[in-house]
Parts: sequence; structure tokens; C-alpha cells
Amino acid sequence: MPNTLSDNAIARLSVYRRVLTEMHRDSRTSVRSDDLAAAAGVTASQVRRDLMLVRALGTNKGYDTADLLGAIEKLMDPPEPQEVALVGVGNIGTAVLSYFAGRRPMLDITVAFDNDPAVIGRTLHGCPCLPVTDLAEVVAGRNIRAAIIAVPADAAQKVAEALVSAGVRGIMNFAPVRLRAPRSVYVENVDLTGSLEKAAFFARQRSQKEQGQTGYAY
Amino acid sequence: MPNTLSDNAIARLSVYRRVLTEMHRDSRTSVRSDDLAAAAGVTASQVRRDLMLVRALGTNKGYDTADLLGAIEKLMDPPEPQEVALVGVGNIGTAVLSYFAGRRPMLDITVAFDNDPAVIGRTLHGCPCLPVTDLAEVVAGRNIRAAIIAVPADAAQKVAEALVSAGVRGIMNFAPVRLRAPRSVYVENVDLTGSLEKAAFFARQRSQKEQGQTGYAY
Repeated sequence: MPNTLSDNAIARLSVYRRVLTEMHRDSRTSVRSDDLAAAAGVTASQVRRDLMLVRALGTNKGYDTADLLGAIEKLMDPPEPQEVALVGVGNIGTAVLSYFAGRRPMLDITVAFDNDPAVIGRTLHGCPCLPVTDLAEVVAGRNIRAAIIAVPADAAQKVAEALVSAGVRGIMNFAPVRLRAPRSVYVENVDLTGSLEKAAFFARQRSQKEQGQTGYAY
Repeated sequence: MPNTLSDNAIARLSVYRRVLTEMHRDSRTSVRSDDLAAAAGVTASQVRRDLMLVRALGTNKGYDTADLLGAIEKLMDPPEPQEVALVGVGNIGTAVLSYFAGRRPMLDITVAFDNDPAVIGRTLHGCPCLPVTDLAEVVAGRNIRAAIIAVPADAAQKVAEALVSAGVRGIMNFAPVRLRAPRSVYVENVDLTGSLEKAAFFARQRSQKEQGQTGYAY
């Protein structure tokens, strides 16, 4: 095991994993650092440094795709299935449950919380929905360390604080607010509005450029 | 209008916009570059350079929150509502329709495409669902430049190519694959699996560190 794994290294390993999964699915048996670099948008020497973290050694023909994928999975995946809690079972929360059901067997959304009586008590995509008032007890009692926040913006900070108090140290946050959390907690923001805003902005800028309608300099 | 707007500058302006929207909602009338810098995780001098892009000038008391928000919106938002197409009306696509309905009046998902007969012909959250075979004609005919891809991984590349052929230049991609697209097309990847993987990984790493169970060096 490496001594340190920075946020950025893990982010890149996650991208390599995705690319390797596709290559493996397409029955490609070997891969060169250049190919991974191009697919991930980093330099080949960065790829080689990162792959030393997983103790992967290439030959002059490159790396064995299946071996490399296995090594990254071994590093990134928990040794046994890891429980994840979901807070907020609205549209985004429900989509998240459906999306992750069966996708990553080692990451298992085993419990969801909401304050809507129409949702509490139901089981969605195999996941029971409990009242949010049970959150602290259940999360702490089961030793759950990772959670997904999919509640409205004005409720997110309080939910984050409750999760952290209960022992959560990694949060995937869909609420369109910047959470305040101790440095010991990792927050991964998924900013859907910002992402669409950016795609739409560049779509306009690039179309205008093609049509020669602006004075943008490139 | 500035002469150039890089992807990174727009990404940061999008974050400032989110932070300013929260501050404005909390009735905060002025903001300093340091506050924005802390909230966005960049330096105060970076904030000041970015805000010159929107011609915002601060005083020694900082910037007026509403003015600054208005200036960023004026730069980022289209002059009239911009149409966005959605391809794939499964769980993620439906959640996206619900999430964006009314959230950004200037970004309007006006048409969705799918190949599922159970979905085609329906109107979801105000958006009509058409057969994917109509995509090229509708997107090109209406001059739609921005699109969201929410189809399974193995269908995404073909959908992206059809969208680009029809004139789309900005794509928000939920499919867990890296799309190949011309440089003239902006692709914003939303990697849900990678994000949860990262949150879960760091949750484990940090919990283990607290419990002193590993040899991780920090």
C-alpha cells in the first residue's frame, strides 16, 4: 500500500479505472501509458507515476488491461462491501438509488432518510427509507462512514452536520450549496446547475464563433 | 464583453454565482474578494482578476452582492432563453427534467428523446418526449446548441455524434464513458460513480486515520 494518496491521485485513478473498464469491455488486452494519458487528459509520465501507486509495472508492450484494472480496483474498493447512507429521497435521490443499484457491489446504499411521510417506510430499489429523525442513531450504530446528500439547498448544511456528528467522513453532495465541514471530512460536490450552465455557455460561445458573429479572440 | 473566457474562468464564475446566490438569499448586501475566495477555494487575487471579466469594481467595503450577482448572470446567461435537448429519459434523465424544471428560466430543456415506446409521446415536467429517430431533424431545425446525454454507456458515443452533426456544441454527459468529440465541442462530464467512489474511499481512509489503524502518512 502506498503511504499517501492525495485527492487528485484518487481522482485520476478513478478516471483510469473508467477508461480501463471500457477497454476491458471492448476485449482490449493491453494498454500503453500514452493511451491512458490521452483518454484521461494528463501526461504519460503522470500516468506512470500514478500507476506506481498501485504497484503496476508496464513492459515495452504496455500494461495488461485486466491486471491493471484489478490492481486499481484492489486499491480503491473496500475489502468488504461498504455501506452508504442517502439523505433525501426526492427526484435526485430516487435517481441515485436506481443508478447505483447493482452498479458497484462494493458500494452499497443500504439506508435512506427523508422527512416525507409518503416516502418513509417504503423500500426503493432495495433500499429502506427511514425517517430523518433516525439518522444519528442508525448511521452511528451501523458505523456508516459515507453518505450522499440530495436534500434542498436550505436543508443541506444541517444534514451535513448531523452526518458528521454521527461519524460520516465522506460526503457526495448534490445540494446546490457549499457545505461547511471540518477538514477531516471529504466533500465531493456534484453541481448539476453549474455543469449545465457551463455546457450551455460554451455551446453559445462556440456556435457564435463558427458563425463569426462576435469579437471573441481565441 | 471580455475578449476571452477560458473554461476555467467560467467554471470559477459559476462557483461565485452559486456562493453569491446563497449570500443574496441570506440578505447579505456586501461581499469581499477574500470571502468569495474562501468559499470558492481560490486566492483573493484570482477572484479579483475574474471579477474584472464581468467589469465589477469593488470598493474598500467590497462588492455589492446583488450588483455582482447581476453582472455574472448577465455574462453567463443567454440574452434570451436557450433551448437544451435531453437524450435518454430513464431514471437520470427524468430526475434531470424534474431538477431543472423552473430552476434556470434562461436554460430550458424543451425537448427530450428516447427509444422506449413507453416514454415516447409523453410529456414529463413540461417537456415532450420524442423518438430518438427525430433527433437530427428537430435539433438542427430548432438550432439547438446544448444537450444533455443520459443514455447507457454503450449508446452514448453514437448519440454524441448525432448531436454534434445536428449542430450541438456543448454537452453535459452523464454516461460513464469518455466521449470522443471534435475540439469545437465542449463536453462536461458528470461522473456519478467516480464521485461516490471518491467520497467512499476518503471516508474509509479518514476513519482509519482517526482510529490509527493504518500506516498512511499525511
